[in-house]
Order: sequence, then structure tokens, then C-alpha cells
Amino acid sequence: MLLIHNTSQVIQLTAEPQRGAELGTLNILPHGAVLIDGEHILAVGEPAELLLAHPEADLLDAGGKAVLPGLVDPHTHLVWAGDRLDEFEMRLQGKSYLEIMSAGGGIAATLQATRAASFEELLAQTRERAHIAFAHGSTTLEAKTGYGLDIETELRQLEVILKLDEEGPLELIPTYLGAHAIPPEFAGNAEGYTDFLCNEALPAVQAWWQEHAPARQLPFVDVFCEEAVFDLAQTRRILLRAQELGFPLKLHADEFANLGGAGLAAELGAISADHLVKTSAEDIHKLAESNTVAVSLPGTPFGLAQSEYTPAREIIAAGGLLALATDLNPGTSWNESMQFIQALACRYLKLTPAEALAASTINAAAALGIAERLGSLTPGKQANLIILKVPDYRMLSYRYGTNLVSTVIKKGVVYPLS
Amino acid sequence: MLLIHNTSQVIQLTAEPQRGAELGTLNILPHGAVLIDGEHILAVGEPAELLLAHPEADLLDAGGKAVLPGLVDPHTHLVWAGDRLDEFEMRLQGKSYLEIMSAGGGIAATLQATRAASFEELLAQTRERAHIAFAHGSTTLEAKTGYGLDIETELRQLEVILKLDEEGPLELIPTYLGAHAIPPEFAGNAEGYTDFLCNEALPAVQAWWQEHAPARQLPFVDVFCEEAVFDLAQTRRILLRAQELGFPLKLHADEFANLGGAGLAAELGAISADHLVKTSAEDIHKLAESNTVAVSLPGTPFGLAQSEYTPAREIIAAGGLLALATDLNPGTSWNESMQFIQALACRYLKLTPAEALAASTINAAAALGIAERLGSLTPGKQANLIILKVPDYRMLSYRYGTNLVSTVIKKGVVYPLS
Repeated sequence: MLLIHNTSQVIQLTAEPQRGAELGTLNILPHGAVLIDGEHILAVGEPAELLLAHPEADLLDAGGKAVLPGLVDPHTHLVWAGDRLDEFEMRLQGKSYLEIMSAGGGIAATLQATRAASFEELLAQTRERAHIAFAHGSTTLEAKTGYGLDIETELRQLEVILKLDEEGPLELIPTYLGAHAIPPEFAGNAEGYTDFLCNEALPAVQAWWQEHAPARQLPFVDVFCEEAVFDLAQTRRILLRAQELGFPLKLHADEFANLGGAGLAAELGAISADHLVKTSAEDIHKLAESNTVAVSLPGTPFGLAQSEYTPAREIIAAGGLLALATDLNPGTSWNESMQFIQALACRYLKLTPAEALAASTINAAAALGIAERLGSLTPGKQANLIILKVPDYRMLSYRYGTNLVSTVIKKGVVYPLS
Repeated sequence: MLLIHNTSQVIQLTAEPQRGAELGTLNILPHGAVLIDGEHILAVGEPAELLLAHPEADLLDAGGKAVLPGLVDPHTHLVWAGDRLDEFEMRLQGKSYLEIMSAGGGIAATLQATRAASFEELLAQTRERAHIAFAHGSTTLEAKTGYGLDIETELRQLEVILKLDEEGPLELIPTYLGAHAIPPEFAGNAEGYTDFLCNEALPAVQAWWQEHAPARQLPFVDVFCEEAVFDLAQTRRILLRAQELGFPLKLHADEFANLGGAGLAAELGAISADHLVKTSAEDIHKLAESNTVAVSLPGTPFGLAQSEYTPAREIIAAGGLLALATDLNPGTSWNESMQFIQALACRYLKLTPAEALAASTINAAAALGIAERLGSLTPGKQANLIILKVPDYRMLSYRYGTNLVSTVIKKGVVYPLS
């Protein structure tokens, strides 16, 4: 039993995801306390009352600072080898992402490095990023494959995700993104690669998973629905096949062009539709009428120095479920910090600090289908918390470029950061 | 004697500031070594040669990572009390900086908090920021007054700067910015406050300095030349009076409007002209023909979510001296990290990572008039270095939002970061 006391504020959030104008409901307890029993939250309330009820509890002094739920990052490409430094300069000189991709750069470069890396190399490089994310307050993080594309490397990426999740403390939620790009073996033949995914890769991943992680839900299946990658019909085929095999769905939609991906995600009941920069008003309404979470990735336009961001206020006004994520990846946005994403969201999506925090916790958990067990300081949920170095949660958006987290708690275990 | 070896690369830069197209001259030694003798750099070269020449040297293993000069931040408002969280939300809802200032918010709010703070409170709050800056690789940092405006509080701010510089390890270079805003005592009377500065405040600061820090050069005198603050004529009066009293000059110019400040800075031989968002082509050429360093502060438009930045490529093309700084302050940009400023500069000023690094080291030192003694890994200069967590300096721009520095060395003393 652990009692966190001497806080400036405890930000509870809500047990349920926050739709539309509800976004930003924080339920703040000034000078509140949190009682943790094992891996779970037992109570949130007045410190004196909780201490009287449980005088046996160990005490953790929050130093007069703010206590929040652990941050959740629902969209990352955590598992890769190498870097794309050379491309970074080229891109800032004006080459577009799709131009670089067509020229064999982009994802193809990371594909080569990731295929060439051993399991141990891939594990070590990925672990470093996982630790940075955790040290910046993310206690749960989605991780995609998609830098192998052949079955062998994709399974190696899944194995890295399972291994790091087992190591902890960061909890990883896996996604199979075999449909991230067209691999060299299928150059110019998106249709042939779509066949391969439907007929060979998806069943192989399903079988591997049932052998290696039988107790866990199948990973999400995600598709990069975009010009020069997978068109809407191919995306639909892959997602329907995945659904048939029992996989839950996610979708990369409307990052550079509007192909109708967001509407498709809503139609098929995907757990989330991600990016949403070019989304039409019609698709915003389709999303808002569904339970599909709209995940905005402001690090990507920022990383690419682009000026167009997700129309977040329109999504909120339409009554949608909005979440934030880093999109951590070696091409467009190498940033592990959900704190910085909140700072960006306030400036470029015009969210309030409260909205940005809710979109980085309870709604981010909803974008992974796990809002029932984490994402808020609700009794019964997993005890994932962060203690800040500062007394006011809004500092996460107001200040930027540094790390304002002093202590991370995952499943009730305390990890002080030095 | 200390030998830093097992590096991926040693980035020497140049002994002299880099003008125009020279910007970005890094002089990289792959797997080089650095020999430090006491507070100074003795040599940079091949590890085996340096070790043979000085077998008695202690060894510091850089772990196969990059070694760079310590970063220099030549424009901060380090010394303040309190925060401006409430204003942050207001501002993101569309209020302009000058609107907030006219309404008694902005600098006036920090003025009130800073006047009310004791020396010890002000010292403690400022120290925390100084430590964060140092932990992000800044080894030398300019710090301005300007949140007191009355003589007593301004002197308290100078005292905090001198005290923190004495404590170290971060070295502080002081600037007196009594001309930061019009204080409430002179509301609507910029002319009267200008008289006060020229006739009372500047002589008082000079006298105080000669008593309290006789061995040190007088601080810089800086003026916020801007609409609704000090017009060009008032700015000229203050700067000329300061020059007469022996103060070296700096200037805030062209942040929101073009009043001709940049040209005036060049004319009067100021060490730097800072902000330079609205600078005219004519003034860019005046700057380029002078030794006044153009200091760009990309954190400010970023912090304000504005789209217009310093025309850095025009300044380089004209042959100017370009430097970068954080502008760390509670109103528009609370960010201590010169790493993040480099990431911004690549994206929004279209600098290369090499240019951004030179603008954050040797040219930033030039913006403080101290390029002869620091800012590059040149034998004889102060031994200020950073060891990165990564093998390539370009990561400082490519990755963002986290801290890539593992070890900071100031005046030859090693500070490992945990």
C-alpha cells in the first residue's frame, strides 16, 4: 500500500473517454492524495482521510508538485534500426516525403537497415527509445512493425515489442503494420503486395501470435492509406481480411492526401484513425458519429516544417473523440516526448492545456482500446502516474523543450528519475 | 591534464566567428581527441599522438559519441519570479503580445512578481533554470535584468546574476535591460522614463557595478526598441548615454514591427541586434557591413505560434554574422534548451544542422564579445565541451524534444548528467 501525499494537485481525469466538448475534463483535487494497492489505484481523495483509513500505507512525498496519470502514446513506430540523418537535410531543402520515398529513400532506407539488424541489435536500439519515452512520462505506448515488410523481419519486430514489454517498465501495445509501404520485392505492384498481405502475411502473423503470445489479444492491424502507398480499395481489402482473422484495426489516414481513409476507419469500426491532416468535413462527421478515435500527430507536420495540422477544433466541435500521439519514427519525427506533443497541440491545434492532457491520457488509452484499465486516476485502474517537477499541469504545455517529469510510477512501482 | 578519447567525432569549429557563407564550418575530426590542461584546451588531435605526448593525462572515455564545444546562449531573461500560465491560454486564444501588455499583463505581471520576491526567492527560482540550461549543454549564457525597472529591483537582478555566476558551473554574462518596458510609475510617459534611465538609472548601475564587481567589464545595456515601448529616438538616447558611461551595447530590434533598430545597432557598434523578425533588406545590409551579430530567437515565434521567423538565409547571403539564442522568458518562450533552438532553426530558419551549431557556439560567443576566449575547441580557449549520447552532431537538429547531452565540461571540470 502506497500513499502519495503532499501534492499541489492531483489530476484525476475521467474514467471514460471524453467526447467532443467534454474534452479537457480534468477533475482536479487541490492537495489531493492517491492510494495505491499493488498494481492498482485504490482511492483518490483527501490525504488525511486516506491516511486514517490506511495508516499502514507507505508514504511517497510528492514535494508539493502535481500528480497526473501516466501519459499514453497511442501511435509510434518504435522498432527500427539506424537513422535517416542524410535524408533530414535533403528534406528540409524542400524535397517532399513522397518524392524521397519514390527515390528509394524514406521508409525503404529504414527497411534495409532494419532487415539487416539482428534481433539483439534491434532490441538494443529500440530499448533506448523506450527508456527515453518512459523517462518523459509515457507509461503505455503503442509500437508498430512496418520496417521489415517481409514476414521474417516483421515477426522479429513483433518479437522485440513482446520482449521489451516483458522487460518493462514501459508497457507496449503491438500493431502489425505490414502495410506500411510497398517493399522492393513488389515495386510498382501494390496490388500484388496486397494479395501477399491478405493471403500470406496476415495468416502467418496470426499463427505466429497464437504460438508465441497465446494469452494476449492479437495485435492491431494498421494500413498506410495514402497516395503511392495503399489506395482505398486495397486498404479496405487488407482491413477486411484482418478483421476476418480476428485482428482489431487501426488506420493511417489523410496524412498527405484525402483518400477517404477516415470514413473507412469509422465504417469498419477501427479503434482509431491517425494523422487526419487532410480529412474532409464529411469524414470528420463520420468519425464523430463512430467510436473510432481521431489521433492527431502534430510532431509530424512540425518535424517536416509543414504548416498544416489536424483540424482538431473541428473534430471536437463535431463531437469526435480526439487523442494525441508522437508518431515517433526515424523519417519525419524522432521525438519520444508526449510532453512536447502537448506543447505543440496547444500552439498548432489550438487545444487548451487541459484538452491536450486529456487527449494524452484517457483518450489516448481509448485509441488503444484500453481506457477501461488505464488512462485516468480512477480506483480499480492500473496505478500509472507521473509526478511533475512543477506544481501546475499546464506547465507541460506552457514550457517546452525540456523534461518536467520527476518520478514515473508504473503498475504501482516507483521509478524516480535522476 | 585530461584527455577525452574514444569519440565518434570532435567538432572543433573555428577560432573566429563565421561570417556569411562561412557559417557551418565545423572542422570535424573523426575519432579525434581533446586534451585539457586545467581550465583550458591544450590540444585537439589524434588520440594516440596526444597520449604519447602526455602519458600522464587522466583519461575520459567519450563512449564512441560526439564531442562538441559547450553551447552558448546569448539572449535570455533568466532572472524572474513566478510564471505567466494564465496569460499563456489567453495568448493562444488570439490576444497579441502588445494587446496583453497594454492591458497590464505581459511584462507588467512579471514585474510585480519580481519586485515582490526577496533576493533568496529570486535566486532559487533562477538557479533552477540555470541548472536546466547547463544540463542541456549551455556552458555560457547571457542573463538580462528588466523585470524590476526600478533601480532597487534591477540591482537585485544583477546581484542574482553575479551570485549564480560565482556559484557556477554555468557562466553568466550580465545585461542591464532597464529599458525593457515602461514601468507603472511612468505609465504613458516613455519620454519621462527615458529621462529617468539616462539621468538616474544608468549612472546608478554604473556606480553599483564599480563597487560590487570592479574587476568585471560593465554589463551590456540593452533596449526593447518596439512599438508601445521605446521608439527609435528614445532608444538612441538611452544607448548613447550608456555608451558615454562606458557600457557595451545590445539591442532588441524588429520583433513585432520595424522601427529601424537593427540599423541603429550597426551604427552604434552594438555587439548584437536581437530578434530581427521584421528587419528590412536595407537594415540586413547595414548589419552585414558591421560587426554587430544578428541574433535570431526562433523560440519566440514558436512559443507564440506565429509563422514569421528571422530571415536568416538573407542575413547569411548578405554576409552577416548570425547567432541563435533561446530568449528564455516567462511570457513568450519558457525553454532553456539550445538543442531545441537548433531543431527549430533547421525547420523554420532553413539552416543546416552545421550552420545551426556554429550559430549556437562560436557565433553565439561573438554575440557576447567573448569569441576570443570560448565558443570553439581551439587550443588556449576555455575548456567548455559537451559529450552527446549520440555519435553524430546532426542529431541535435534531427531529433527534438529530448536531451541528447550526456556530459558537460565547464572550465575543465567534468559534470556527468544522470
